[in-house]
Amino acid sequence: MALTLVSSARSFGGEQRVYTHRSAETGTDMRFSAFVPPQAAAGKVPVVWFLSGLTCTEENFTVKAGAQRVAAELGLMVIAPDTSPRGEGVPDDPDGAYDFGLGAGFYVDATVAPYARNYRMASYIGRELPEIVGAELPADMVRQGITGHSMGGHGALTLALKNPGRFKAVSAFAPIVSPTNCPWGEKALGGYLGPDKAAWRAYDACALIEDGARVADILVDQGTADGFLANQLKPELLEAACGTAGIPLTLRRQEGYDHSYYFIATFIADHLRWHAERLGG
Amino acid sequence: MALTLVSSARSFGGEQRVYTHRSAETGTDMRFSAFVPPQAAAGKVPVVWFLSGLTCTEENFTVKAGAQRVAAELGLMVIAPDTSPRGEGVPDDPDGAYDFGLGAGFYVDATVAPYARNYRMASYIGRELPEIVGAELPADMVRQGITGHSMGGHGALTLALKNPGRFKAVSAFAPIVSPTNCPWGEKALGGYLGPDKAAWRAYDACALIEDGARVADILVDQGTADGFLANQLKPELLEAACGTAGIPLTLRRQEGYDHSYYFIATFIADHLRWHAERLGG
Repeated sequence: MALTLVSSARSFGGEQRVYTHRSAETGTDMRFSAFVPPQAAAGKVPVVWFLSGLTCTEENFTVKAGAQRVAAELGLMVIAPDTSPRGEGVPDDPDGAYDFGLGAGFYVDATVAPYARNYRMASYIGRELPEIVGAELPADMVRQGITGHSMGGHGALTLALKNPGRFKAVSAFAPIVSPTNCPWGEKALGGYLGPDKAAWRAYDACALIEDGARVADILVDQGTADGFLANQLKPELLEAACGTAGIPLTLRRQEGYDHSYYFIATFIADHLRWHAERLGG
Repeated sequence: MALTLVSSARSFGGEQRVYTHRSAETGTDMRFSAFVPPQAAAGKVPVVWFLSGLTCTEENFTVKAGAQRVAAELGLMVIAPDTSPRGEGVPDDPDGAYDFGLGAGFYVDATVAPYARNYRMASYIGRELPEIVGAELPADMVRQGITGHSMGGHGALTLALKNPGRFKAVSAFAPIVSPTNCPWGEKALGGYLGPDKAAWRAYDACALIEDGARVADILVDQGTADGFLANQLKPELLEAACGTAGIPLTLRRQEGYDHSYYFIATFIADHLRWHAERLGG
C-alpha cells in the first residue's frame, strides 16, 4: 500500500484519518487528512478536496472547520492535503517569510531553481494524489468537487478551471481570485515561475476565465471584515470575469466575518451541500 | 472594565471572543473564551461552562469542538476557562510533567506549598470568574450549566455537586469520575492537597455523592476506544455511586470513540441540548 496511516479517530460515525506517503512529484513525504464517512462501508463515496491557505498544514482544516458532521450526513469523503512540500533539503523563503516556500506552495508547479524540484503542488494535487486516493481509499473518483480557503481558494478555482472534466463542483472561501493582481500572488508566482507574467496566467482564476476556461458554476463566500479583502482577495475581479464569461457565480459577502476558521466553520455546511448536490452524493 | 478583549470573531451569527483579566484568586492574568450567541443582542442568555482537560488552554475546546453552531441555535453563551494559572513565578511540576502544574490545575484550591498561592482553580471557576462574567457579559447567571472533558469532566461534576443551587445542569465527556482512585488523580490531589486522603473527598465526584451531595441528573459520554478508560476514567464507579444514591445517570458508552476532540465534537450538540432543556434556553 502506498499510504501509511498516521492516525485515525472515530468522528460522527465515520473515521477521521491522517496518512503519509512518498510523493514522486515533490520528492518528499507528504501528509493529508481523509474523512471517511460511514456510507463508505457500503461502497465508494464522492470526494470533496479542501485546499488550505498560507501557513497551514493538513491539520488546520481537519481540526477547526467542523466539516465532519455534514460530510457524514451527506456521505462525502473530504480530503485536506498539506500546502507545500516539507522536510530536509526543501528550500524555503530566503527570509523565512510566511507567504513563500514552506506552507505556501500556491498550488503551482515551480519552474525556477531552487524550487522547481520540490514545489510541484499543481501536479501533486492535480494528478498524483488523486491517483493514490482512487487506488487506496473507497473514493468514487468520477464524482469529485474541490474547495479551499484563501491561497487554497485560488488553488481550488484554478484546478477546477483547468480540469473541468475531473471536478464536477467548485467553491471557495475568501479566495485569492487573481494572484497576478495582489502582493501575495506577485511574490509567489514571481518566485516560483519567474518574471514572465505570461506564465502566471495558468495559475490565475480570472486570467484562466479570460483565456476561455469554464466551469458550470461557482460558490464563493467572502467575509466583509476580512483584513485581506481589499488588498489581496479582490472578489470583484472574479465577479467581473464571471460576468463577462457568463459563468454563474454565487458570491456571498458575509457581513462581519473575518479570514479565520470561525468563518469557514460557519459556512462549510453550505459548501458541502453545494458539492453534494452537484456530485449526486 | 475588569476584562480585556484579546480577540473577537464572528461565528454562526454570534461572536467568539477571548478575554484576559487579572485574577485575585490565582494572582495571575487568566484567559477564557466566551461564545456570545446572537440572542444576546436581545437580552441575557443562559451560560454553559466547559472545563477542559490536561494540557489544554482555553483554546482547544474553542477551536476544535464546533460548539458554536448549536450554541447559536439554542441561544447559549459558552465559556471555556484555562486549566491552570500560568506565567512568571507560577510553580510547575518539578519534572515538567503534563499531568501536574501548568495545564493541570485539576479544579482544586491547593493547600500545599508552593502551589497554594496560585493554584486556586476551584475558587476561580466557582466564584471569581462567574462574578466577573455576570457583571461584564450578557449572561443570565440564574441559568448556568457546566460540562467538561476528562480532568474538566471531573471539574464539572465536582463543581456541580458542590454548587447545586448554581448549576441547573451538568454533563461530562470521558470524565475522571474518582481521582482518589486513579493515577492522574492521586498525583494531582496528593501534590495539591497533601497526603491526607480525607481532604481529597471534596474533589472526588463519587466520594461527594457517597457523602451526600446530589444533583438532579447527569449526562456522561464515554468512548469505548478511549485509551484512558480502564486505568484513569472508570465510569463504572460513577455508575455505582449514582445507582446507590438514586441520581439518574445517563451514561452512554460510545462505540469506537477515543479521548480526542473528534469525540467531543461528535456529541457536543447532544450536551448543549441537554443543558438548554434544563436551563430554559
